Amino acid sequence: MSITAVVKKNTYFDSVSLMSISTRANQLPGVEQAFVAMGTEMNKGVLSNLGLLTADLDAAGTGDLMIVVEAGEEADQAALLAEVEELLVQKAPSGSGGADTVTYRTVDGAARAIPEANLAIVAVNGAYAGREARKALENGLHVMVFSDNVPIEEEVRLKQLAHSKGLFMMGPDCGTAIINNVALCFGNAVRPGTVGVVAASGTGAQEVSVRIHALGAGISQLIGTGGRDLSEQVGGIMMIDGIRALADDPGTSVIVLVSKPPAPAVQDKVLAEIAGAGKPVVVYFVGGSEDAVTAAGGHFAGSTQDAALQAVRLGIDTPAAVDELAAKQVDEVCARLTPEQRYVRGLFCGGTLCDESMYALLEVSDNVWSNIQKDPGRRLTAGSPSVGHTFLDFGDDDFTNGRPHPMIDPSLRLARLVQEAEDPQVAVILMDFVLGFGAHEDPVGVTLPAIAQARKIASDAGRHLEIVGYVLGTDLDTPALAEQVAALEAAGVTVTRSSTETGHFARETARKAHRA
Amino acid sequence: MSITAVVKKNTYFDSVSLMSISTRANQLPGVEQAFVAMGTEMNKGVLSNLGLLTADLDAAGTGDLMIVVEAGEEADQAALLAEVEELLVQKAPSGSGGADTVTYRTVDGAARAIPEANLAIVAVNGAYAGREARKALENGLHVMVFSDNVPIEEEVRLKQLAHSKGLFMMGPDCGTAIINNVALCFGNAVRPGTVGVVAASGTGAQEVSVRIHALGAGISQLIGTGGRDLSEQVGGIMMIDGIRALADDPGTSVIVLVSKPPAPAVQDKVLAEIAGAGKPVVVYFVGGSEDAVTAAGGHFAGSTQDAALQAVRLGIDTPAAVDELAAKQVDEVCARLTPEQRYVRGLFCGGTLCDESMYALLEVSDNVWSNIQKDPGRRLTAGSPSVGHTFLDFGDDDFTNGRPHPMIDPSLRLARLVQEAEDPQVAVILMDFVLGFGAHEDPVGVTLPAIAQARKIASDAGRHLEIVGYVLGTDLDTPALAEQVAALEAAGVTVTRSSTETGHFARETARKAHRA
Repeated sequence: MSITAVVKKNTYFDSVSLMSISTRANQLPGVEQAFVAMGTEMNKGVLSNLGLLTADLDAAGTGDLMIVVEAGEEADQAALLAEVEELLVQKAPSGSGGADTVTYRTVDGAARAIPEANLAIVAVNGAYAGREARKALENGLHVMVFSDNVPIEEEVRLKQLAHSKGLFMMGPDCGTAIINNVALCFGNAVRPGTVGVVAASGTGAQEVSVRIHALGAGISQLIGTGGRDLSEQVGGIMMIDGIRALADDPGTSVIVLVSKPPAPAVQDKVLAEIAGAGKPVVVYFVGGSEDAVTAAGGHFAGSTQDAALQAVRLGIDTPAAVDELAAKQVDEVCARLTPEQRYVRGLFCGGTLCDESMYALLEVSDNVWSNIQKDPGRRLTAGSPSVGHTFLDFGDDDFTNGRPHPMIDPSLRLARLVQEAEDPQVAVILMDFVLGFGAHEDPVGVTLPAIAQARKIASDAGRHLEIVGYVLGTDLDTPALAEQVAALEAAGVTVTRSSTETGHFARETARKAHRA
Repeated sequence: MSITAVVKKNTYFDSVSLMSISTRANQLPGVEQAFVAMGTEMNKGVLSNLGLLTADLDAAGTGDLMIVVEAGEEADQAALLAEVEELLVQKAPSGSGGADTVTYRTVDGAARAIPEANLAIVAVNGAYAGREARKALENGLHVMVFSDNVPIEEEVRLKQLAHSKGLFMMGPDCGTAIINNVALCFGNAVRPGTVGVVAASGTGAQEVSVRIHALGAGISQLIGTGGRDLSEQVGGIMMIDGIRALADDPGTSVIVLVSKPPAPAVQDKVLAEIAGAGKPVVVYFVGGSEDAVTAAGGHFAGSTQDAALQAVRLGIDTPAAVDELAAKQVDEVCARLTPEQRYVRGLFCGGTLCDESMYALLEVSDNVWSNIQKDPGRRLTAGSPSVGHTFLDFGDDDFTNGRPHPMIDPSLRLARLVQEAEDPQVAVILMDFVLGFGAHEDPVGVTLPAIAQARKIASDAGRHLEIVGYVLGTDLDTPALAEQVAALEAAGVTVTRSSTETGHFARETARKAHRA
């Protein structure tokens, strides 16, 4: 075994970069063990325990980089050392950016150079993290401190300073945050959405955000507080500020709190924020008490999975969720309509799918006509032309009499689609495509020619016609859900993700089209 | 345009087969319109409206098959007709089965020939469906009637008969059911699970089952009632029997009811069943009243999506869900253990993941040790050997001091995995693999050699060692969730689907291993 040790004077790398470099150095062929770290007392202690602390290394200062490579006798030490140094070059100092990254030597300098920056991430040795965080706060920046080993008294002072300035102080030891759809440090790639999370737990926050993503929803903001925020000493300063920020955020429909069990007095303070939040708050404190959460008006979650399910459920039809749908799709559609285009026409195979969308639209208009309307004054027959907002269930007896169900024989619905496209008052046509055993073997494919024809009729008349499709099916169905969705999207159809969302889309389009 | 009409005497096809044949016939090149149907008055009326009813067709009886092909002048009518007849041959009469299908001419004959059969699907013309359903019920068979146009008085009589015999009478006009994981008629391919559904709506049932599948859960039974079951006249006979059956079913954790709004008196009767069900009941009656459902002790759903989310949530940790987990995985694991193998060892990167599993195990045992145990008497340090059920958070300061986080540097955890494999008391080792920005670029890959080594140590000592892995990540992460899961499965690791399920697995294994 042979050991090479090098000290690079005044060469600073942040701890996140060093973690990555160390891991890669340990994977180099020929390396038994590699150690790349700043010359702190703690790191020198580790080397000493391993019997690797030479006099040179012991003389290294906190701003010096120590590189120690242990290799087999036959290894080419110089070559290995060169390879480790190459890793340092690949990893640009003080950041994970590429060639476009500009490096600043101080927080003040960076803040002056990029006045629009509003957040600093601090990932230096814990002994210096507090000082850097304070500089960032004094420059008006929100702060995320990834570093641990910051004294708790310093955490309290930093959080009090941040609070007084209306800034976030996430951390110390804050591993995970997602701010404005950007995952910071240990975050996962999750869909943007309307669920806001405040978490005193890094992997707890990751788990909840990943479960919310898996349920088909997404994250508005994920605010980390660091693991000690709910201790007696810190008193939940960041979690309380986080709850208030999400309460004020129009993009957040539901708030989820995640933590290990807080100090009892702090739990009371945090739960007292729920009543004033004005939106549902789901609380998962590992091993926590249901009674306290319920008494505070919160929604108790007994597990991370439960927290995610409740958050998604409570967010389905809140103003924020509806605004998100509107911002993403409805506004775009309405912007392309003529003033005359005001009505939704739903052409459904599924009776309940028709009914669910019709009920959603009835929330904003009485001018809703259908062959399955309960109100006899607004009931249509198979032969009637459409009136106002019209929802037709082609599976109803009136249409199926003597014919196969539209899930098998699409001909009547195809003809109606073309007919509706002629109507200059039509803004949106909704259609469902039902997969499953017994259903048509390619419900989307058989409809595509009529969709193209309908769109051409409208565009020849100088109108945009929006066709919205929902595919009811699973990844296990034949054909599979994804394949049918892709075919609709390729044909310019806007695809909704559930019967419920289809109804919300119809309702919001009708609301906006009428207002215009 | 030329028209060819043929009547095939005494040639009966059920309506499901005819739907499929008609659709295919209409797609044949050269065919303008094709009509393949039994010679009922209704079908002859349709032909008359289309101006296609010849004297020959008008003379057809209800047991005769009518084939009408309309084609362009230049078409070879005889060839087209032959192609349509070929479709009849491809589609074996009275069934969708292949070469193995045996055909019986009567329900009685079928019931005698297959005494173990317990369900009949009736899909003949509505005029005869009631008679066939009655025969099936009299033979002790549950019945699903796909046919519509059965008089409501007959439906009432059939359902009363079925009820008195303790049989299901699903339909008439029942399009969807999933019984013992077999989808009947229009059902989707969904995962087996513990959510039971009773639905008076075919596509409503499809939508709820598909949403439950999309949420990662599955269906125990989906019982269709037919659309008129909740009318004043029928009085909800089948829905009430369905609720009672699911209440008694140990494989069902939660019951979901789906329907268009029932008749008020019937709604009261159905909701009155909720209190006695002994498990949560979620109610989605399109446009229904929250107050009535809540007052009855049910969980009101405002949409199909809401119904699915609530059902999954309420089912997470019910006895049926736990039994399902046990039946699928835990029992199998426990059967392979020696009597000495009693303990769970959790080796976690994620603090909250460690905590969540530890709290689950604390429900069944006090013998739980950890570096993050609140009970100081059961607290371990990084250097301590494992005791009883041990849960180690390798991300805790005690382990990370001077080292990168285990999400980046796995070396300590890998060494511990091998060490735990030496312990003859270890039954199961739990591990989490955390994906995300900043995390190790291949957390599963870097662990596979140690997993193989651990398994070899155990098998050399004549033990089975169960390694359970949970991958925290999404389809959008790099590497992607599915890729990491596949690598674990290929290495013989049992993969759980969430942190919550990992905890349940640990708890149930500990419970069973102690009992054994």
